[in-house]
Amino acid sequence: MSNAELSGFLGRWLPRLEEEMRGALAQNEPTVAAHYGMIRYHMGWADETLQPRIYRSGKRIRPMFCLLACAEVGGDPVQALPAAVAVELLHNFSLIHDDIEDGDEMRHHRPTVWKLWGVPLGINAGDALFALAFAAIQQLPRLGVAPQLTLQALEIFTQTCLALTEGQYLDISFETREDVSVLDYMRMIQGKTAALLGASTAIGALLGGATQQQIGHLLAFGEASGLAFQIQDDILGIWGDPVVTGKAAGNDILRRKKSLPILYTLNHAHVGEQFETLLDDDFGPAELPQALRLMDQAGAQEFAQDAMHAEHERSIAALHAALEARPGGTKLGALAESLLNRRV
Amino acid sequence: MSNAELSGFLGRWLPRLEEEMRGALAQNEPTVAAHYGMIRYHMGWADETLQPRIYRSGKRIRPMFCLLACAEVGGDPVQALPAAVAVELLHNFSLIHDDIEDGDEMRHHRPTVWKLWGVPLGINAGDALFALAFAAIQQLPRLGVAPQLTLQALEIFTQTCLALTEGQYLDISFETREDVSVLDYMRMIQGKTAALLGASTAIGALLGGATQQQIGHLLAFGEASGLAFQIQDDILGIWGDPVVTGKAAGNDILRRKKSLPILYTLNHAHVGEQFETLLDDDFGPAELPQALRLMDQAGAQEFAQDAMHAEHERSIAALHAALEARPGGTKLGALAESLLNRRV
Repeated sequence: MSNAELSGFLGRWLPRLEEEMRGALAQNEPTVAAHYGMIRYHMGWADETLQPRIYRSGKRIRPMFCLLACAEVGGDPVQALPAAVAVELLHNFSLIHDDIEDGDEMRHHRPTVWKLWGVPLGINAGDALFALAFAAIQQLPRLGVAPQLTLQALEIFTQTCLALTEGQYLDISFETREDVSVLDYMRMIQGKTAALLGASTAIGALLGGATQQQIGHLLAFGEASGLAFQIQDDILGIWGDPVVTGKAAGNDILRRKKSLPILYTLNHAHVGEQFETLLDDDFGPAELPQALRLMDQAGAQEFAQDAMHAEHERSIAALHAALEARPGGTKLGALAESLLNRRV
Repeated sequence: MSNAELSGFLGRWLPRLEEEMRGALAQNEPTVAAHYGMIRYHMGWADETLQPRIYRSGKRIRPMFCLLACAEVGGDPVQALPAAVAVELLHNFSLIHDDIEDGDEMRHHRPTVWKLWGVPLGINAGDALFALAFAAIQQLPRLGVAPQLTLQALEIFTQTCLALTEGQYLDISFETREDVSVLDYMRMIQGKTAALLGASTAIGALLGGATQQQIGHLLAFGEASGLAFQIQDDILGIWGDPVVTGKAAGNDILRRKKSLPILYTLNHAHVGEQFETLLDDDFGPAELPQALRLMDQAGAQEFAQDAMHAEHERSIAALHAALEARPGGTKLGALAESLLNRRV
């Protein structure tokens, strides 16, 4: 059973990853202890006074994609560990900066870094984490990875950093644009979400000794999975159960977030204009039922679900192409599947 | 004459550097053109509407240190060009973020990136430039630099990124600290200014085929030069000629900037308390003569000048150790000398 195998894998590698990440952030110079302390706080390893304490943190999906891809192509995940650390640190760098850029005050039920220490130190702590991510992936040769292969991993990694900023650029500029299309949206999440998941599996595969063809398929798998997760996020942001998600019903509509179902409705031939006018005016919880009715008429939920399933199918096809069908499936497939079955 | 040689070198390499940097920023996808356009604006290659136009930009000291160090140890500067591009892009990434963190609205007589396009896009444009700096240095193998050597350059580069954030962390936190010592200050500028200049010469030397000993000496040369420049900046920020610097007389005192002469006076046994009280209260241009008098009594200008000269001597000694005395001196020494003779 690949689900039991997956649990075994996660149980073995999650603690090791966490240990390696802490190692990457170990810093002994007292003068700058608080600088790195803010990063440890963000990672869930310190409280607001920077004393050690463990909080519930992110799901570490990206590093697990990286380690699993390495293992699935027959490699030893140990060799991919520095890269797994790097993709998770990079993801967290982007969260610290996104929180500033979006003005978000809370993350995982705790105040964000900038909220506690101000925007200047927050930007700067994010920059340090960016550099630490590069320092982490450069540790690959210490585990015996050839310099040439390390540079190949670095190139994928660096291009992904650029893709992240491109996605974020589009996301920020959508806020003030009136003409955002569904295609624009797909381009945005390709950069903001899919690129790093694709890089995680591609780098893992590269380090596991995969063929160029396998690397290409596993890149496609990671990217398509990322698109599917993001669209699912968008669906839950509107139709998710408030009891389960912890957010208000129709949360994304109230925030006028340009998510896929909302953009689809805004661009709809029949109800688009009416929906736009509704959101333009003093829009509040009282108008929510009307907004949801218009989205129903447009078929926004169905559209988003179809889009999500299409990406999911694409990811499964890529995974099969990379690893060929295996009885009982793969751990990588099982992880992607389990993430799509979440309700939060 | 090494000055004529230096002019020849700069005349040959500055245009090539500029061309390479533009190449690193060439971006054809229309969707994200404005994202990279903001960076081109910052670099001085585009106007506020992102149309091509050339402005006076920075002095490109860091890349010239890199190329000169490569040449001085007998290497071909072409091989160091990607690294020269990288150190200049990294420097500019830090400027974009520093401007946000310090709230500075103008740079080189033009509005800063965040001032024109807002803090969120400004942070994100800086992040892209950070990634582009890494992309640039990873081009080294295309010029025939061995992967192993490329990774060594990358390691110095990455550690320097961290040092930059440490320096910036200290600089920001000094603003709210009352107990900043002269030693704290030296630690701050070591990270904020000296580290990158040291890395520039060290990487240039490494790529030019220098011995480990030469690399160490040229690193020390770059760092000491950086400390000397920064202290000189601090001196000009108080006693510089307003006609020449374009800033008000005693500008740094009015801004209560914790520069070396000011910190020295604040920590002075006799006038320190009086100086602190003066700055604490409603301090304005009317109180400036009194502040300057107290700094005179403390001997702040002399102290700063001594410190600057000490670093300069240290840099010359390191340069000699690296390259041995040459008749007529070196181009690297001539460049450092010319920078210390500036009045702006």
